[in-house]
Amino acid sequence: MSNLEAQYRIEKEPYYREVNGEVGLFEAAYAARLPMMVKGPTGCGKSRFIEYMAWRLKRPLVSVACNEDMTASDLVGRFLLDKDGTKWQDGPLTTAARIGAICYLDEVVEARQDTTVVIHPLTDHRRSLPLDKKGELIHAHADFQLVISYNPGYQSAMKDLKQSTKQRFGALDFSYPDRETEIEIVAHESGVSADIAGKLVSIAERSRNLKGHGLDEGLSTRMLIYAGSLMKKGVDALSACSMALVRPMTDDPDMRDALDAAVGTFF
Amino acid sequence: MSNLEAQYRIEKEPYYREVNGEVGLFEAAYAARLPMMVKGPTGCGKSRFIEYMAWRLKRPLVSVACNEDMTASDLVGRFLLDKDGTKWQDGPLTTAARIGAICYLDEVVEARQDTTVVIHPLTDHRRSLPLDKKGELIHAHADFQLVISYNPGYQSAMKDLKQSTKQRFGALDFSYPDRETEIEIVAHESGVSADIAGKLVSIAERSRNLKGHGLDEGLSTRMLIYAGSLMKKGVDALSACSMALVRPMTDDPDMRDALDAAVGTFF
Amino acid sequence: MSNLEAQYRIEKEPYYREVNGEVGLFEAAYAARLPMMVKGPTGCGKSRFIEYMAWRLKRPLVSVACNEDMTASDLVGRFLLDKDGTKWQDGPLTTAARIGAICYLDEVVEARQDTTVVIHPLTDHRRSLPLDKKGELIHAHADFQLVISYNPGYQSAMKDLKQSTKQRFGALDFSYPDRETEIEIVAHESGVSADIAGKLVSIAERSRNLKGHGLDEGLSTRMLIYAGSLMKKGVDALSACSMALVRPMTDDPDMRDALDAAVGTFF
Amino acid sequence: MSNLEAQYRIEKEPYYREVNGEVGLFEAAYAARLPMMVKGPTGCGKSRFIEYMAWRLKRPLVSVACNEDMTASDLVGRFLLDKDGTKWQDGPLTTAARIGAICYLDEVVEARQDTTVVIHPLTDHRRSLPLDKKGELIHAHADFQLVISYNPGYQSAMKDLKQSTKQRFGALDFSYPDRETEIEIVAHESGVSADIAGKLVSIAERSRNLKGHGLDEGLSTRMLIYAGSLMKKGVDALSACSMALVRPMTDDPDMRDALDAAVGTFF
Amino acid sequence: MSNLEAQYRIEKEPYYREVNGEVGLFEAAYAARLPMMVKGPTGCGKSRFIEYMAWRLKRPLVSVACNEDMTASDLVGRFLLDKDGTKWQDGPLTTAARIGAICYLDEVVEARQDTTVVIHPLTDHRRSLPLDKKGELIHAHADFQLVISYNPGYQSAMKDLKQSTKQRFGALDFSYPDRETEIEIVAHESGVSADIAGKLVSIAERSRNLKGHGLDEGLSTRMLIYAGSLMKKGVDALSACSMALVRPMTDDPDMRDALDAAVGTFF
Amino acid sequence: MSNLEAQYRIEKEPYYREVNGEVGLFEAAYAARLPMMVKGPTGCGKSRFIEYMAWRLKRPLVSVACNEDMTASDLVGRFLLDKDGTKWQDGPLTTAARIGAICYLDEVVEARQDTTVVIHPLTDHRRSLPLDKKGELIHAHADFQLVISYNPGYQSAMKDLKQSTKQRFGALDFSYPDRETEIEIVAHESGVSADIAGKLVSIAERSRNLKGHGLDEGLSTRMLIYAGSLMKKGVDALSACSMALVRPMTDDPDMRDALDAAVGTFF
Repeated sequence: MSNLEAQYRIEKEPYYREVNGEVGLFEAAYAARLPMMVKGPTGCGKSRFIEYMAWRLKRPLVSVACNEDMTASDLVGRFLLDKDGTKWQDGPLTTAARIGAICYLDEVVEARQDTTVVIHPLTDHRRSLPLDKKGELIHAHADFQLVISYNPGYQSAMKDLKQSTKQRFGALDFSYPDRETEIEIVAHESGVSADIAGKLVSIAERSRNLKGHGLDEGLSTRMLIYAGSLMKKGVDALSACSMALVRPMTDDPDMRDALDAAVGTFF
Repeated sequence: MSNLEAQYRIEKEPYYREVNGEVGLFEAAYAARLPMMVKGPTGCGKSRFIEYMAWRLKRPLVSVACNEDMTASDLVGRFLLDKDGTKWQDGPLTTAARIGAICYLDEVVEARQDTTVVIHPLTDHRRSLPLDKKGELIHAHADFQLVISYNPGYQSAMKDLKQSTKQRFGALDFSYPDRETEIEIVAHESGVSADIAGKLVSIAERSRNLKGHGLDEGLSTRMLIYAGSLMKKGVDALSACSMALVRPMTDDPDMRDALDAAVGTFF
Repeated sequence: MSNLEAQYRIEKEPYYREVNGEVGLFEAAYAARLPMMVKGPTGCGKSRFIEYMAWRLKRPLVSVACNEDMTASDLVGRFLLDKDGTKWQDGPLTTAARIGAICYLDEVVEARQDTTVVIHPLTDHRRSLPLDKKGELIHAHADFQLVISYNPGYQSAMKDLKQSTKQRFGALDFSYPDRETEIEIVAHESGVSADIAGKLVSIAERSRNLKGHGLDEGLSTRMLIYAGSLMKKGVDALSACSMALVRPMTDDPDMRDALDAAVGTFF
Repeated sequence: MSNLEAQYRIEKEPYYREVNGEVGLFEAAYAARLPMMVKGPTGCGKSRFIEYMAWRLKRPLVSVACNEDMTASDLVGRFLLDKDGTKWQDGPLTTAARIGAICYLDEVVEARQDTTVVIHPLTDHRRSLPLDKKGELIHAHADFQLVISYNPGYQSAMKDLKQSTKQRFGALDFSYPDRETEIEIVAHESGVSADIAGKLVSIAERSRNLKGHGLDEGLSTRMLIYAGSLMKKGVDALSACSMALVRPMTDDPDMRDALDAAVGTFF
Repeated sequence: MSNLEAQYRIEKEPYYREVNGEVGLFEAAYAARLPMMVKGPTGCGKSRFIEYMAWRLKRPLVSVACNEDMTASDLVGRFLLDKDGTKWQDGPLTTAARIGAICYLDEVVEARQDTTVVIHPLTDHRRSLPLDKKGELIHAHADFQLVISYNPGYQSAMKDLKQSTKQRFGALDFSYPDRETEIEIVAHESGVSADIAGKLVSIAERSRNLKGHGLDEGLSTRMLIYAGSLMKKGVDALSACSMALVRPMTDDPDMRDALDAAVGTFF
Repeated sequence: MSNLEAQYRIEKEPYYREVNGEVGLFEAAYAARLPMMVKGPTGCGKSRFIEYMAWRLKRPLVSVACNEDMTASDLVGRFLLDKDGTKWQDGPLTTAARIGAICYLDEVVEARQDTTVVIHPLTDHRRSLPLDKKGELIHAHADFQLVISYNPGYQSAMKDLKQSTKQRFGALDFSYPDRETEIEIVAHESGVSADIAGKLVSIAERSRNLKGHGLDEGLSTRMLIYAGSLMKKGVDALSACSMALVRPMTDDPDMRDALDAAVGTFF
């Protein structure tokens, strides 16, 4: 195992609770080397799932947080100046293709179109990546797989993947876990009791009903873990919920009242 | 045969099923060195066809996935810094013109106008490429041919080729293959039986009728192959179709119901 | 303690008057290494509070004034040319992650999206920062914490943090201090008597009622300190208030009259 | 004759059929060193005419395909890094001014304004070109002439030459050749008989009546030559016309029907 | 006194006539090191006043004419390539902060937001300037003061200082001097008699009543000095006023008539 | 006289016919070192006048054709890479300020705002030019004068000089010369007889009445000289007028008819 591979290897089993058979489906997709798209709201566990699958499949994981100022060169690589002239530096996508990693492009719709087009030859029968600036054509390692994440709640007509990109991926839908699973996750991750975790999940369920009625998204599992962690550090429940659940979400006084009321019902 | 040529040579006959006499027509166009434009929807086999023709004509193939951030320099070449100063690095178009390759510019309308204008002198009687930054005028190799692809479904008034570009190309229209051919392709590529391939093609046919009624494009042949491949890896038919055909296409609940119904009819 | 750490260490206790239990809440958040967002109007003491907490927690403080032309590289780092070629220079965020500092991104909504996305992996369970251009993955020092500031009065639909960013932070609301506290602060910082400080605070209170009625913001505590400082240098009260409170705020004649009237009531 | 000149020298008489006395008029304009503008639709022979005149006048020809991403530096020149530091590299306009070439800026309205302004001092009594970045003022060679092309059909209020540019040029209008001349050109260039060339010209005449009624431009002489060339390679007339005349022009079903009907009338 | 300081030192007392107690107020502001904003119309003497105060306070003066293409690096500094690699070059703001100069940012609203945000840490209790690209935190010299100028007549909703910037400055309003002072200035600076200077001031007064009635600004004191200077060189009064007062102001025939009439009344 | 000066020296008296006392007025303005703005339509002789004045005043002339892509660095200078590192290269404005030239910024409104702001300190009592990137402050040579040209016919609300720029210049209006002078100029410059020159001027007079009625500008003196030059080379009068006067001006059929009619009246 090369040094580079070791850097991206997931050493310890990440905590992950399967929700809906997604582990088996992803394994089949990986076996077929099908490029995958994981869809779902903020903080529902998409990144954790990919980390878990990389650990399970014993593949290195190269993650890239996409953004609208990222260029194709940021993914593919560029020439750097050395004392002997220029030297090529692989980008994360190229590295992943060479070492046979799972390459995870997080929030891919944020990226500019050149980023999304540059992955096309890696997602069809060619499984190749042309390094145009270097004049080299890379054939992906047999173990390489491309995975992208996608939050359908954000997409607008202005910013969406093109059909010619979408049709290159299989897709798995993610959502918040069911109540029992979410309680188990919050309790495990924050250290609070199942009773308190249950109250936090109840608050989250209320907030998720407000989605589209003044909130862009409901409370995520991650926020519940934050609130639980603050309580474990000795913050009283109301302050912890205010800090971790209500104030980050919104500055709208009515929505704050609605969320505060939800908190007050359970604590 | 030079080293560079070897890199772009197609060694193995790509699997391609002729649909409508396009092989002979392309051969004649190549014999006249007519620049060609292949038009058609996503995933209908345009790239595979060009790969096949390059193999058949025994020409190297230089492919470029165009995108809106690609500059003329990305095609033509640029100066790189070396320990002895700057050194010219040919871009893929220049390489293709020098070695007499077929140069395939995929999704050319995505490119900025400087990219499309830079190809003009290669597409008329001059067959030349001025490397303005280097002060050199390249005369294309006698075997060089330029091919561009174009998806008419995407074009808008904002983003279209100019007439002065279009009129420099002959054109071949591509569409999805006829039913029998498509079944043969899906079965061959994914390894499923003709019976299952037939069901997948039937689902695709239904989806293609939804184009313009809520879907931007119908299911492509490539997606059917994906679904078949998942089944071959042991995923049940419904899950495979959900992952490979329905979820990647759309997040609209009504369209998902329509596609799920199509899947349910056949599996 | 390294040299780099020393540069960012707060040596002297900054003057800070707690308003509403925020010191204890921040300490709990720091203990949980919860990324924090401090919200509030201009000049109400957000930056001073973070400076105070860094001193109290004995952590170095790396502050960055965000702006819309700041790139991800400005935060993360870049290659610089050296006589032996290129050398990597850590950006302030990378420095903070390495030395275990509190990194304070002031007015984070001003930044471009690549800046806000680049902090994501530092704000979840990964606590890592990929230096894509260098091909290195940094794991944040155990003492590292990320803090951002946010002025809700400025936000518009065009320029706001995305939910996927907001949900990664706990939040504390700041406002102007209560009357008694503000008088104490103004007197302490400018050197004027509590009586004069009280008059200045009274003027500020009136101006804050004009917010949304012709003024974008009310007078900040900082402006009161400026006015007091001018008086201590011998400027008469009316001139000092005109220079420090009225003229900087607005060029609108009606609003100037309203503010002048408020000044005239108390001096 | 210098090496540089030789590169741009037209060795062989280009095939050109005079249409309307333009050869003599251009010779007089060249004798007066009047900067010239040639106007006309796509593919009517403007570039070929200039090539012919350069051959006839025994001047080297430097052609530049203008585009909206071309900068003034692309025309004038720039500093390149050498092992001994920077070295100036003349751009094509500078080269032409130095060696006394005809400099042909094709589709000049596509260029940014800095390109069009940079040519001003070369087009009045000064006949000079300031290389501002180099601090040098070039006086054009006595044989230098500037020629630009311009397609009036494309111009909009947004993208047009400024009066201060237009008034610096004499102008020649070009259009498609008359029927007899066009038949002769198509037969000569493609190798088909005059009879077939005549049918192709007839189709073109019909298409040119559709300009403004659904087509942006009519069929160009170049396209007729393409169709003829395909027939010479053995493609049947209908397929050749479809590939070379109909499909490249439009994707609109009604316009395709109209063009197909025109083809069907003659073949 | 360092060499650098000497370059920015005002050696000779600039001619300045106090109008409204601004000298004393500025001295107090400087004593408190209060960042200052000077507001007023074009050509009323803002720059001259700051020059005078720098001379009077015996501080070097670093002036920067802001513009919308100026970057934060233009103010703060950048790395330059040296034969031994890169070398940091302080920008004017950094220089001023190091040597304890008055730094005068002229027409600051022209600058991009990164310029205005970069000055924030210099304008509050921190009085520091982070050189993020260099990884250095500068603490301003005890004598350093920041002064910005601002023309309220120009500001629009699109281009204005943010409240979070405005509230960091004390402000002094400037206008044209009163009649007697202005006559004295015009006579002193141009060398014409007080009688002629008086006529010029009378013309200016009329023009200032036209502000907002077809003129964006009235005639400035500087223009009167220009007209006087031309008369001293022997130009007749009407020609001098036409050249220096009327023609530069407007091309609108009605406004020209109005201004010509004003000139005709007094000469 | 330095080498640099020699390059910009006007050796031979340029042909210039005074129209309206502008020579004396400019001499007085130069004596007062008043920055000057010359206003007028395209091709009426503004550039020639400045050339003539530079010759008459025995000053070198540095001309810059402004354009909207020109940066402040293009005027002021920049660092270039040398074998020993970077070397400063003065821009044309800096050169002019150092050697005491007349610096002529042609079509200054085309320039971006940073270009127009950068000239401010050269146009008031300071007569200095800060080279911010180099950290140097240049005091202009005593003989330096700045001249800008300006075409009022082009200005729109979007693209105009700011009042704070305009008020820094004296102004001279230019128009087409009176009939007798224009005939003399056309005859002198093209070599045609006064009779033919008179007919050309008559055509121009008619065209100038069409300004604002379908033409953006009337025919310039320069165009008349072009038409005369073609006749001297043997082109018949109608063809010469068509090439030099009608076709360059407009593609509108009605305006072409109007201009052709004017030509037909006199030839």
